[in-house]
Amino acid sequence: MATLYEQLAEALALRIHEGSLQPGERLPSVRQTCGQAQVSASTVFQAYDLLESRGLIEARPRSGFFVRKQPRKAAPPALALPARADSTEVAISELVFEVLHSTRDRDVVPLGSAFPSPDLFPLDRLARDGARAMRRLAPQALTSELASGNARLREALRARCVRQGMQVGSDDPIITNGAMEALNLSLQAVTQPGDVVALEAPTFYAALQALERLHLKAVEIPTHPQWGVEPDGLAEVIQRHRVAACWLMPQFQNPLGALMPHARKQAVMHTLTQAGIPVVEDDVYGELHHGSTRPLPLKAFDREGLVLYCSSFSKCLAPGYRVGWAMAGRFSHQVHKLKMMSSLATSVPSQLAIAEYLEEGGYDRHLRQLRHALADSLALLREQVLRHFPKGTRVSRPDGGYFLWVHMPDQVDTLVLHRQALAQGISIAPGVLFSADQRFRSAMRLNGGHPSDARLTQAVRWLGAQAQMQMQTGAA
Amino acid sequence: MATLYEQLAEALALRIHEGSLQPGERLPSVRQTCGQAQVSASTVFQAYDLLESRGLIEARPRSGFFVRKQPRKAAPPALALPARADSTEVAISELVFEVLHSTRDRDVVPLGSAFPSPDLFPLDRLARDGARAMRRLAPQALTSELASGNARLREALRARCVRQGMQVGSDDPIITNGAMEALNLSLQAVTQPGDVVALEAPTFYAALQALERLHLKAVEIPTHPQWGVEPDGLAEVIQRHRVAACWLMPQFQNPLGALMPHARKQAVMHTLTQAGIPVVEDDVYGELHHGSTRPLPLKAFDREGLVLYCSSFSKCLAPGYRVGWAMAGRFSHQVHKLKMMSSLATSVPSQLAIAEYLEEGGYDRHLRQLRHALADSLALLREQVLRHFPKGTRVSRPDGGYFLWVHMPDQVDTLVLHRQALAQGISIAPGVLFSADQRFRSAMRLNGGHPSDARLTQAVRWLGAQAQMQMQTGAA
Repeated sequence: MATLYEQLAEALALRIHEGSLQPGERLPSVRQTCGQAQVSASTVFQAYDLLESRGLIEARPRSGFFVRKQPRKAAPPALALPARADSTEVAISELVFEVLHSTRDRDVVPLGSAFPSPDLFPLDRLARDGARAMRRLAPQALTSELASGNARLREALRARCVRQGMQVGSDDPIITNGAMEALNLSLQAVTQPGDVVALEAPTFYAALQALERLHLKAVEIPTHPQWGVEPDGLAEVIQRHRVAACWLMPQFQNPLGALMPHARKQAVMHTLTQAGIPVVEDDVYGELHHGSTRPLPLKAFDREGLVLYCSSFSKCLAPGYRVGWAMAGRFSHQVHKLKMMSSLATSVPSQLAIAEYLEEGGYDRHLRQLRHALADSLALLREQVLRHFPKGTRVSRPDGGYFLWVHMPDQVDTLVLHRQALAQGISIAPGVLFSADQRFRSAMRLNGGHPSDARLTQAVRWLGAQAQMQMQTGAA
Repeated sequence: MATLYEQLAEALALRIHEGSLQPGERLPSVRQTCGQAQVSASTVFQAYDLLESRGLIEARPRSGFFVRKQPRKAAPPALALPARADSTEVAISELVFEVLHSTRDRDVVPLGSAFPSPDLFPLDRLARDGARAMRRLAPQALTSELASGNARLREALRARCVRQGMQVGSDDPIITNGAMEALNLSLQAVTQPGDVVALEAPTFYAALQALERLHLKAVEIPTHPQWGVEPDGLAEVIQRHRVAACWLMPQFQNPLGALMPHARKQAVMHTLTQAGIPVVEDDVYGELHHGSTRPLPLKAFDREGLVLYCSSFSKCLAPGYRVGWAMAGRFSHQVHKLKMMSSLATSVPSQLAIAEYLEEGGYDRHLRQLRHALADSLALLREQVLRHFPKGTRVSRPDGGYFLWVHMPDQVDTLVLHRQALAQGISIAPGVLFSADQRFRSAMRLNGGHPSDARLTQAVRWLGAQAQMQMQTGAA
């Protein structure tokens, strides 16, 4: 039997099909619908979420929900990803270290890399901008700004974040050594050793490493491969565990590529606000949407300062510069203090190069070009994988970022494949890196952020053939 | 009654005075003396330490101990600094944050600052070198070197560290975001939450903050204000507590300015090696010796890889660039992993600017100029403090770095003085910042790394008068 929100969604879908809700028309507000249907706000959010995920409606920032003019392309088949019910100690770092260490050779085909091609970035201009800004800098500024970061850069970031719908506190942002430091400090600000942290499944390995380093336990939230965290699943996890914090990547999740629809973000924020649970939000891929609109981050739905929003320029402007930031809401003071205690300050030359670049203009134009390049190279890689990989392989279809999550038949072991591939000069990111207990043995993450060439095509073909061979050997 | 090592030291001192050991003559080796005097190696080390601290003998790298040609100037009177016997939880960060935050204004007289004057550094050349190196860089290098650091910079550092007598492992050094990150990662590599760490007293507040952040307990080692950690005191602490690690600053300790003589370093290393206890060594001031020779770091006496040596360019070449490093001996793998987990990598523009600078040459000439400038400005500040501060004030006389440790009569409260001074546009570093339980209320650290001018002189005079006033009010 259908749940309440499914019934509500069905009723609304019927009205759209019958035409009593026209394309482009605004849906009743959540409050109105609550009254009309005699259901809770959370049920309405879930119903809207479902409609959004089916491509029937869309959210518009600050305006509400509207019937789509053209129904969205159908969602790809979901990949089966059962979440673990119990919380676990984390000990993944040695494996991650081994894999990343082995794939950092420049001559390896970078399908396992976490970075897009460095040729996609305006590196010459950044070098020039940085040199100019350093020559103009008053020497005193080198040691006076310290923990919070360069004033020009902070100002430019504040303006961007406000445009993206976020509430920005007066102490925000705090400039960090890449998003990695921002995430680590944010997580530490809201936890104590032994605490339980709720994560997506699969999740970015750096989240697992952060938990390990801070002596925290992991619990998994059921995660839809296309639409991210399941609000019901989250509510259940919170009921079952004493969750101190969540760590989520709602935009183009690494490794799934999932994008949480706005209604789902509202529902998740509602649940977390009720429970008073802080969220570390990793948004390093948010700017890399392939569609025309930047999705609102979870932080844009946060009215209580519970979201510790983290991002960086490493994936969209300046790899290697190590400039990230945290907008930590009510935890800003704590994050600021932790920054001072753990690394004091962030490289001034790096900060100034980016501040100068942002002030000079052209960042949005660069982003548009980058998004097109990544959408193209990712689509091409997806095609090649579908062509060359064994029957039964399922491949994610993300609307942003540059990762593919590739699920192969159960007989394939991607950790074995990783070692075999490395011997051929090919790197991949095996699925075991993406959970606390090394599941996802038949999955892997592939980097579609490098322009296709003969070597890359050859590598994909080799991987497909090798996986096929594993299946035959395993079956024999 | 004199201890064994004091008796041995007296016997050797007598031979020097009588001329049976001539100026410039080599003393018997530790092993020979053990045999002759029928005492342990540790007793011999302590005796040599005492003779070195009295200025009668000197250690020469890899050669042994020699009678000084000219006896060294007499040591200044010791400042009474009783160490606490019990271990304590640490909760200093809020106070440190408040004080540092309030003193970062550029217009404040920077007596409380941790950095020397930025005018002392070759900032223009670094900006030029950095821009040139970035333009020449292959884009792939931006993401391929990651956690361990830039190869050119690591090579240059390796060469310098070998020249300074250190054993350098093949994985060393690991480049970090300043020494602060190197120290934090090193400490985390050798401890678990709840562990006890032994520190100097007073100690650098960042050490206390690191303990607080990592949920560690502090125990103090009796520390001589001129010669650093007392080997006997250390042995006692180790017997009484289950010490997981030490955090020491053997060269020009912050805030005391103490420099451990070589014999004392040997004795300390001997004790720690016997007990298998790792040491985090902070050597950020080692290059800033005022005498002609760079003192050997503790790491140069370490044959077991127990020393996690940390330093940076922030105080001697490139403030604000945030480039430091760790040479972590047997813990290199662990530190490397922690670096990857907590901030992934260090700013490439910053690393390259310094690598290019080091390769171009001129660093040693810059260091000579810097040392002279700092020795001069520190001596001048010391004179002014002695002239203007209340009777009974005792002032350290460091042989390197740029800090003065100023002990005033008990009636003076430097936390109050800090707040009063700030209202006058003057910063100081009150003594309470330098211990886990906020002792040293009548002491403060003053920064002598800024060229003297009328404002600075005026500020010193004002501080002296204000302290005098506190004494009179307190006594009234």
